[in-house]
Amino acid sequence: MPPMSCRHLYRPGTIALAWVLGTVALATSWATARAPGDENWLDAYRGPASRIIGSALVSTLAWDRLAELTDEFGPRLSGSPQLENAILWALDRMKKDGLENVHAEKVMVPHWVRGTESAEVVRPVSLQMPMLGLGGSIGTDKEGIEAETLVVRSFAELDAAGERARGKIVVYNVAYESYGRTVQYRAAGASRAARLGARAVLLRSVGLPGLRTPHTGALSYTGQDPKIPAAAISLEDAEMLQRIQDRGQSAVVRLKMEAHFLEDAESANVIGELRGREKPEEVVVVAGHFDSWDVGTGAVDDGGGCIAAWTVLKVLKDLDLRPRRTIRVVLFTNEENGMRGGYAYRDAHKDELANHVMMLESDSGTFRPSGFGLSANERARATVREIASLLDAIGVSKIEDSGGGADISPSVRAGRIPSMSLEVDESRYFLYHHTPADTVDKLNPMDMALGVAAVGVMSYVIADMPGRLGQ
Amino acid sequence: MPPMSCRHLYRPGTIALAWVLGTVALATSWATARAPGDENWLDAYRGPASRIIGSALVSTLAWDRLAELTDEFGPRLSGSPQLENAILWALDRMKKDGLENVHAEKVMVPHWVRGTESAEVVRPVSLQMPMLGLGGSIGTDKEGIEAETLVVRSFAELDAAGERARGKIVVYNVAYESYGRTVQYRAAGASRAARLGARAVLLRSVGLPGLRTPHTGALSYTGQDPKIPAAAISLEDAEMLQRIQDRGQSAVVRLKMEAHFLEDAESANVIGELRGREKPEEVVVVAGHFDSWDVGTGAVDDGGGCIAAWTVLKVLKDLDLRPRRTIRVVLFTNEENGMRGGYAYRDAHKDELANHVMMLESDSGTFRPSGFGLSANERARATVREIASLLDAIGVSKIEDSGGGADISPSVRAGRIPSMSLEVDESRYFLYHHTPADTVDKLNPMDMALGVAAVGVMSYVIADMPGRLGQ
Repeated sequence: MPPMSCRHLYRPGTIALAWVLGTVALATSWATARAPGDENWLDAYRGPASRIIGSALVSTLAWDRLAELTDEFGPRLSGSPQLENAILWALDRMKKDGLENVHAEKVMVPHWVRGTESAEVVRPVSLQMPMLGLGGSIGTDKEGIEAETLVVRSFAELDAAGERARGKIVVYNVAYESYGRTVQYRAAGASRAARLGARAVLLRSVGLPGLRTPHTGALSYTGQDPKIPAAAISLEDAEMLQRIQDRGQSAVVRLKMEAHFLEDAESANVIGELRGREKPEEVVVVAGHFDSWDVGTGAVDDGGGCIAAWTVLKVLKDLDLRPRRTIRVVLFTNEENGMRGGYAYRDAHKDELANHVMMLESDSGTFRPSGFGLSANERARATVREIASLLDAIGVSKIEDSGGGADISPSVRAGRIPSMSLEVDESRYFLYHHTPADTVDKLNPMDMALGVAAVGVMSYVIADMPGRLGQ
Repeated sequence: MPPMSCRHLYRPGTIALAWVLGTVALATSWATARAPGDENWLDAYRGPASRIIGSALVSTLAWDRLAELTDEFGPRLSGSPQLENAILWALDRMKKDGLENVHAEKVMVPHWVRGTESAEVVRPVSLQMPMLGLGGSIGTDKEGIEAETLVVRSFAELDAAGERARGKIVVYNVAYESYGRTVQYRAAGASRAARLGARAVLLRSVGLPGLRTPHTGALSYTGQDPKIPAAAISLEDAEMLQRIQDRGQSAVVRLKMEAHFLEDAESANVIGELRGREKPEEVVVVAGHFDSWDVGTGAVDDGGGCIAAWTVLKVLKDLDLRPRRTIRVVLFTNEENGMRGGYAYRDAHKDELANHVMMLESDSGTFRPSGFGLSANERARATVREIASLLDAIGVSKIEDSGGGADISPSVRAGRIPSMSLEVDESRYFLYHHTPADTVDKLNPMDMALGVAAVGVMSYVIADMPGRLGQ
């Protein structure tokens, strides 16, 4: 019974003495904090790291707050009142959390509206297909477009079909390889087909096999080609249209879309800070994007990333851990269909970018974290690896070869700023991505808390250590 | 190099001799076929079984035909032209396959029509919820029903709420335990809530967690309670409404449904046979149900079961394996919302039920088969176990304690007929069940071919063996 035999060690007097000694030791170690490269410099951060991890993992605050955000405001597409109401809520809550310099930075954003939409097979069978218009697509006229389909498995097949595409609804039945490879059909498919005289485009959704689940996402029209409507359908229906064509039959589809643009709308990036105690002008940014598509409630993409980053500041504030440099949370607007928030931040802060020590974005879903992606010099990489060793025990210490995020990238490029991403188990990310199933239940409180703990320790140490990251 | 050293064994002359000897042996064994209980009686069936298995597994016919059915006719709800067109197609194809006594047996079926429908949260957030009206539900008036929600996790919670249910839309947020246990909320939930004055019911879908996927299915109103509209919503939205209530807020939902019944419509059970060579009046039935819900294309539930059963007869016919007794395929109509096909078969064949040796239904999806369920006496069970040993190598030899199917059950009960089911890997069945995702891609050709092989061997031996099963 070892606990009993050791009991005398824990007499009140002993505890008080240990506490005093510990505090003195901690103060001493802080006062003499050494820079990376010095032996044992990291020891000074074991105490703060354990407090950050403990505080993050003792509550389900991040998940609860994400549930509140998504339940009460729902989808947050650029231009929607839901997004603007959510922004007001975030500003209010950040102030209540005690964050500093809480403010909104105005950004004008595109205002695309989906409207009512449908796609139905009218021959050989009468069948409604679950569909989602692609973001930025034009609509059809009221009667819709009714045309035979031409199914292709690649741009090469489309180009080989040539004139046969004229007057048709082109169906891209492209198997999902990876988001990076397959998304080109969503981005460029409409204009490529329009060039050959197609009337509209249906896209097999870019994502993992689901439950007849369409995935939306942005397209971009070229300047040269006619604009034609484009929508995502499910893997199941793309394969069905393929089989019908392969049997030598023709399928006819009717597509109706009310999609259109309104005038640009006013939105904002939301900012809150924990001001640095010694070098407040030097900034570590932790970020996510607050806008979402209009079909799910944007919990995975990217409400979770926003709430996790924000919660990091709340945890540090509550622990009274004020680092040497400023830690700033940025909730970017309009990542999904314009990236205006990312550009606006770069422009509004251009004189300050040289003082950005590091920028971190979490936009892969706050699933179980595994580590960080990092784009920086070798000196920074060595430091980040050392810091990550504090996260070994919670399994978040893997450092990948590159890191960053869409919203921070304009600033990162302009200011040559070290950039990081929170790396997570992405295995289900592209199952939910841009679908109605992007809801808070797909994430779990412990995974989110681990993300808060990991980003908390990493950003705190980088913001607090004597030398600047990478220098 | 063993193959080379053995090559002399395969000289043409040797092969011819082996073939003659084999044929003689086979003929002898057939001529002296022994009944179950006799030693080695099964040996006579090793040859036919290997031919059935080989024939089933050398082609993807069953899957291809299921794709054709579902692609060309789509959903097949009772009363729909799609179902009736599919029935005509099946009759035509069965005749072309060379089946005998191919005919339709008229059945009048309920004709429920879903119409346009929607459910949206109007407070605290404006949010469309994916939904499916429950089969048999009444509709709302044109403006719909707008009311506060009362979320309950069980009938006990509903009853405890008592008067608080009056005027509300009751949301059954019941975690899925098993289909058998949880489906009671779908069946009886509307009337239970109406009894307390509720205006409508939303049901957390009875099925596995999906992608914001509602599952439809039939409800049944009691005679006593007012009829109120009822619809299924997703797990995600039921949980959201629960969280809102748990926070002490109220949610308001607007439900619109055009659902209504038309006059009963004419449909039919489809029948085809391989007439017995000695006892054609004795019948082994293999069956599935041909109707489906109106939201998917009814591949898993239960196009696959129908096509598998039908393909068994085609395989036997093509192999010229005509058993002693008749094997009959029955494609039942109206399993989903009325069971009229099953009752009609019982009534139309009542004088013949005593001659039904065994009835088998496949209605758990034609996923990877593992064996059979069997409800019969011990003598029958021993025989079925012996027959199943021929399916050991393809992994389909497990015999479960009970077996049958909804459509065959009226006949089975009336005629005290041994009944069987094809048992399969059901792990994904309730992911797709009654959803738009019930499509042919969820099944694979090899699993279906294995099902055909297994049902083929089982039904052939039972139909051919000298003694009647269980006697």
